[in-house]
Amino acid sequence: MPLPSNTAALPWADRFQAVRQRSLALCAPLAIEDHVPQPVDYVSPPKWHLAHATWFFETLVLPRLRPGLPRHHPRYDYLFNSYYESLGQRVARAQRGTLSRPTVAEILAYRAQVDAWMLAALRQDDVPQATLDLITLGLQHEQQHQELLLTDIKFILGHNPLMPPYAVAEVADIEPAREHVGEATAPLNWHEIAGGTHEIGHIGEGFCFDNEQERHTCHLRPFRIASRLVSNQEYMAFMADGGYQRAEFWHAEAWDWLAAEGVQAPMYWFRHPDAPGSWWHYSLAGAEPLPPHAPVSHLSHYEACAYAQWAGARLPTEFEWEASAPRLDWGQRWEWTDSAYKPYPGFKKAAGAVGEYNGKFMVNQQVLRGASFATPPGHARPTYRNFFHPHLRWQYTGIRLTRDD
Amino acid sequence: MPLPSNTAALPWADRFQAVRQRSLALCAPLAIEDHVPQPVDYVSPPKWHLAHATWFFETLVLPRLRPGLPRHHPRYDYLFNSYYESLGQRVARAQRGTLSRPTVAEILAYRAQVDAWMLAALRQDDVPQATLDLITLGLQHEQQHQELLLTDIKFILGHNPLMPPYAVAEVADIEPAREHVGEATAPLNWHEIAGGTHEIGHIGEGFCFDNEQERHTCHLRPFRIASRLVSNQEYMAFMADGGYQRAEFWHAEAWDWLAAEGVQAPMYWFRHPDAPGSWWHYSLAGAEPLPPHAPVSHLSHYEACAYAQWAGARLPTEFEWEASAPRLDWGQRWEWTDSAYKPYPGFKKAAGAVGEYNGKFMVNQQVLRGASFATPPGHARPTYRNFFHPHLRWQYTGIRLTRDD
Amino acid sequence: MPLPSNTAALPWADRFQAVRQRSLALCAPLAIEDHVPQPVDYVSPPKWHLAHATWFFETLVLPRLRPGLPRHHPRYDYLFNSYYESLGQRVARAQRGTLSRPTVAEILAYRAQVDAWMLAALRQDDVPQATLDLITLGLQHEQQHQELLLTDIKFILGHNPLMPPYAVAEVADIEPAREHVGEATAPLNWHEIAGGTHEIGHIGEGFCFDNEQERHTCHLRPFRIASRLVSNQEYMAFMADGGYQRAEFWHAEAWDWLAAEGVQAPMYWFRHPDAPGSWWHYSLAGAEPLPPHAPVSHLSHYEACAYAQWAGARLPTEFEWEASAPRLDWGQRWEWTDSAYKPYPGFKKAAGAVGEYNGKFMVNQQVLRGASFATPPGHARPTYRNFFHPHLRWQYTGIRLTRDD
Amino acid sequence: MPLPSNTAALPWADRFQAVRQRSLALCAPLAIEDHVPQPVDYVSPPKWHLAHATWFFETLVLPRLRPGLPRHHPRYDYLFNSYYESLGQRVARAQRGTLSRPTVAEILAYRAQVDAWMLAALRQDDVPQATLDLITLGLQHEQQHQELLLTDIKFILGHNPLMPPYAVAEVADIEPAREHVGEATAPLNWHEIAGGTHEIGHIGEGFCFDNEQERHTCHLRPFRIASRLVSNQEYMAFMADGGYQRAEFWHAEAWDWLAAEGVQAPMYWFRHPDAPGSWWHYSLAGAEPLPPHAPVSHLSHYEACAYAQWAGARLPTEFEWEASAPRLDWGQRWEWTDSAYKPYPGFKKAAGAVGEYNGKFMVNQQVLRGASFATPPGHARPTYRNFFHPHLRWQYTGIRLTRDD
Repeated sequence: MPLPSNTAALPWADRFQAVRQRSLALCAPLAIEDHVPQPVDYVSPPKWHLAHATWFFETLVLPRLRPGLPRHHPRYDYLFNSYYESLGQRVARAQRGTLSRPTVAEILAYRAQVDAWMLAALRQDDVPQATLDLITLGLQHEQQHQELLLTDIKFILGHNPLMPPYAVAEVADIEPAREHVGEATAPLNWHEIAGGTHEIGHIGEGFCFDNEQERHTCHLRPFRIASRLVSNQEYMAFMADGGYQRAEFWHAEAWDWLAAEGVQAPMYWFRHPDAPGSWWHYSLAGAEPLPPHAPVSHLSHYEACAYAQWAGARLPTEFEWEASAPRLDWGQRWEWTDSAYKPYPGFKKAAGAVGEYNGKFMVNQQVLRGASFATPPGHARPTYRNFFHPHLRWQYTGIRLTRDD
Repeated sequence: MPLPSNTAALPWADRFQAVRQRSLALCAPLAIEDHVPQPVDYVSPPKWHLAHATWFFETLVLPRLRPGLPRHHPRYDYLFNSYYESLGQRVARAQRGTLSRPTVAEILAYRAQVDAWMLAALRQDDVPQATLDLITLGLQHEQQHQELLLTDIKFILGHNPLMPPYAVAEVADIEPAREHVGEATAPLNWHEIAGGTHEIGHIGEGFCFDNEQERHTCHLRPFRIASRLVSNQEYMAFMADGGYQRAEFWHAEAWDWLAAEGVQAPMYWFRHPDAPGSWWHYSLAGAEPLPPHAPVSHLSHYEACAYAQWAGARLPTEFEWEASAPRLDWGQRWEWTDSAYKPYPGFKKAAGAVGEYNGKFMVNQQVLRGASFATPPGHARPTYRNFFHPHLRWQYTGIRLTRDD
Repeated sequence: MPLPSNTAALPWADRFQAVRQRSLALCAPLAIEDHVPQPVDYVSPPKWHLAHATWFFETLVLPRLRPGLPRHHPRYDYLFNSYYESLGQRVARAQRGTLSRPTVAEILAYRAQVDAWMLAALRQDDVPQATLDLITLGLQHEQQHQELLLTDIKFILGHNPLMPPYAVAEVADIEPAREHVGEATAPLNWHEIAGGTHEIGHIGEGFCFDNEQERHTCHLRPFRIASRLVSNQEYMAFMADGGYQRAEFWHAEAWDWLAAEGVQAPMYWFRHPDAPGSWWHYSLAGAEPLPPHAPVSHLSHYEACAYAQWAGARLPTEFEWEASAPRLDWGQRWEWTDSAYKPYPGFKKAAGAVGEYNGKFMVNQQVLRGASFATPPGHARPTYRNFFHPHLRWQYTGIRLTRDD
Repeated sequence: MPLPSNTAALPWADRFQAVRQRSLALCAPLAIEDHVPQPVDYVSPPKWHLAHATWFFETLVLPRLRPGLPRHHPRYDYLFNSYYESLGQRVARAQRGTLSRPTVAEILAYRAQVDAWMLAALRQDDVPQATLDLITLGLQHEQQHQELLLTDIKFILGHNPLMPPYAVAEVADIEPAREHVGEATAPLNWHEIAGGTHEIGHIGEGFCFDNEQERHTCHLRPFRIASRLVSNQEYMAFMADGGYQRAEFWHAEAWDWLAAEGVQAPMYWFRHPDAPGSWWHYSLAGAEPLPPHAPVSHLSHYEACAYAQWAGARLPTEFEWEASAPRLDWGQRWEWTDSAYKPYPGFKKAAGAVGEYNGKFMVNQQVLRGASFATPPGHARPTYRNFFHPHLRWQYTGIRLTRDD
């Protein structure tokens, strides 16, 4: 597990500041203009992320720490609520990119004020544990948006015909040099995992989301799981074998999706006009030839399944993945599993707005396990359950194969 | 299990004829005009069902029994293929209702010719077991379309402002009197099911679909499951309590679906202008006051989940359902489970076109268990896995609650 | 003007019966199934036309002739109102094809009853002139639906992969032999029309629609107009010259329409798999090789304009057309003009529901002049203003060129 | 005619600079973020306008003045072509708001470079008349985009929940004080215009667009035309009389548009939560109570027609408007006419890309006459033909009534 926890041991104020600072650092290389667009519904403007993560603290935490504080702005509740029905009306999600105001500077001022209020309270007060737990949730929430920030920035820059690079000097772990490294040059070995009962779900003192609980027993058959992710070169072999043209590898709705969207390669892949025989891709460093040994990325669940079918293998279930995790070198790509996102036995939604955090998304989505290049250090763990609709592919998603025999 | 098998013991020719005859009997009460419309994408014209089930035998079975037979019509392959990519191009699904030809009479002639060919072969030949297995699949396939036929007919008649009744004298088990019976008047008891490992999936000699295999072990926690389905009256209590207006009970995409579709009650429910205080519904007998003690029907998975949330309970997983099945009185409504439709461990797609039967639908759909009023006798079994997208509700779908404690 | 008036001289009851009979005759060759589909929004089910034209008499005329008569059926007002807002709610236009009931037989019974009521009144009464005028409007209305009936039938049969012919023995003037005749083999001459003022609009005693009035003065420049319509062969020369691939000939929204709809030829044209080098088309006689000298048909306004641009000519305005009409041999194709459908000076909407007949459509539509193969005898006249949206092409539409010099 | 020509008398370089400078001045009050969004398809990002107007000179003019000049940027041709098919591929119109790059600063640098090239040529060269004519077209084009700039800015700011004001100190004629002035407080008089022939279309030496030619004769009936525009107060009387709820005033497709879009008032009107009884609107000065005597603005053609119907009047044709222009005080609102946008007799498209300027839009659009608060000084004239689709209303559009009697 390559992502050391780097904030949990700090005093609360420092921990808060460390997480909050990273969001700013991720946006520091951007032009003001880059903070505004929403090129597709599921990609939010970077300035919206900066404001929304702040709104979480202002709306859910500050009233506990400083009852009676005025709101920073009377309309920000309407502008920056993401999806909490219990917290009132909000801008339609697809309209976020239509809003030029508040400006980036105004949002930075909003962050500064909320941070000042938060830090004053964290430094002086004897904060009750329940509130500290909520702050932890707020910081985890901000880290989730940091990953979305980076993938949304990549979408905005990478779908621009100019393909400008993202300069990333300020965040050491988000160096372009790390985006496409990986162990995919190594020979692919198969770890054999024994069948029988396995305990699944979070255990221990550390933070986890409600969807990682309750810990429970699963019965698994013996299986084999790949020691590394599928590489670009391996994926190109699937494409060269007609992978995108052969219905036998695809789910029925995946096949319709290919036709409707005209998909013929992973997201960000393109044919360079000056190099017709080879694939290029957009990386955070700009357009560049596709590195053959890097782990393939930016795939839908549909493509991951089709590749596995072609390879005579399958995707692991999330339970198989978790049972295998101690044997795996993971963290470079979110790994599509063949598990739908469903509540664990005994799952309980929290009371209040926080109860809308996870449970209400538990239909029609697929679980991804692991972490990615874009995941903040210390955010992931083997029981972490990420989830997306199966057609989405703007995250750093990849493939790990599994076999029954 | 209330649905006695009524054909498996017959000689093959009789078995074939018995199943095929039921399709005609289901359509016998229809006007010619009723065979034509496709009011929504997922409802096919009744004459299409009659032809498509026949096409299955003509395309997949007859070439084995009578190699070299000419096709009945050179274009029927194009017209009546449903979704088999490996069998060539076909009419777009949403275009089925645009086709007035072939006429019902021509399709009945098509059925008669294919039946004659099939019966001649079944009566005289020593048919190899692999072909008999394919014929069994064809008959099971026709039975599935018989259920769709009835629910599609109900949709066509029930969404017509005239709400004509469906006269059903010819099929004894499809009497209106049976549509809304049920044990929902009985007190609701909770069966306690022990935790531990359970064997899930089909076992034994009889037919099953590929998706019911391989049989495998599941580990379940102890749980309690309702002895009967939720009744109309119970569901009305949810509605009276603001069920459709309170976001807390709904999945996020369900909440959007309610708004987009204007859904405020189960399908076929309406307020009669002359009886504003009470609910009516369209049944196969025509418009009538809603029977309070009948099991609620025509719900989406979203509505089933929201009801369960409101009731402080949940839906069973398909594994819990199967483990409970020996204790349950089931068969009146397809019971939404909270399991996504996924392959069982060791699932293998068959070679050839038959491999497209189930596996390619294993994403974004929910499993239903049991059977319904509309299921042909002998078709269902406790390991049977029905599946639909979670927003669909024109089948006879219902709710059985489960609790952890 | 080849279409002799054949009913105006008859006694009213006979006149009524003659028009009404033609609608039945047009449907006589159909299968019951052909009466049901609505393959696209703008094509109505033939049985809907039969009912709607009847509803017009029942709703607008019979209350004057026989006050207090009960409605034939309490829901037919809802089912068969086309677009009259002042006459209450109605089935959404796009839903007409979802309705299998009332059956064709029930609609024929509806027609028979309304006809019996109408004829009884027409034979015995001293009907006031205002009511006779309304009956005239009802008969003209039915004739308009007769043209739509035939073009909708052609759409339904011609878009079916089986391309069944329409057998037309019962209506002498709708013989297949007449569909594609025309003077397009003749050399194309140019009639010179003098400039100056011309009187435009209906004059005289006969019936006209409100949109043909008031008669008014137009000032025209001298121009030349083609003595005959553009032929299939001429249109193929445009296609062979890259007509559908060269943006310079097309309106901007026409160019978008070509891409969105994939249009590359007139409606009903196709390449026969066994004759790849030549164009075929669907005619009422079934699929057949395109007759090169017939007037080109089934074009959108966009295509007519593009052809004219390519030919270095233009379409006439409706005023130019009307000024030229005495010199033209017209009646085989509706001729697209380059005039938008707008009120004439002094246009007044009638009071009541009849006021919705024409005026409310006077935006975003283009005027066509002349008549077509499908127009009932006696229905057209030189001042008649037909109108459709510019992308529609299922009517018998054609091209007559005009030049300034 | 209140808009004095202020540039035509200047030397070419000064004239060029004066027009170009106004675009920058219009954007000067904006935040960087305001240059980016495209909230609806027809509203372009302000930075796109700045670049596109520059691209026109770079692509169409500079190659004549300075053959062989390199392009400023190899991809700007792709990014900033609006709709010229003959000039190659381009970003889809609806994607303009997805592009954060080039930045505003980069676009200003683009403008500076093209301006430097242009000015150097204009100051030193003996520029051929044909090129000067093209430069004139480019400046007229830029002025058209200046009007769109302002109305697009109003849309972006006015649809933001924060409703920020637009600070306009830098452009004297775009002061908020002028936006809603007007003579609508004056009593409405009716000018009587004599019937007979009128000469329509541009005449004289000055610039005009191709669509204003050729000058030709129209025959008009006598009519009366209002001396001033309809006021907000008069429009509120229409609304208070149920104007938006009474189908009898509306075109059929307007009625559908009202329902589909939920339109119940002109654009930018809203009910203030603290003043429920009165209408407010968003003006460039921010949210403010609706000024009752200002000319009503931001109406669709549909709404203009419905108001006229309600008032027992009608809209003028564009020919009637032009014939009346010498009697009218116009220039505050673009006045919807009831004329479709069609070529004048003898209209000829120019050769080359410039030929795409007007002609290809001559279908399905309505002519507006006059000018508006947002029109650059000197840009309009009585023969000017503006045009938009009838449902659009983000321009400063208004109503002038006409009567036959």
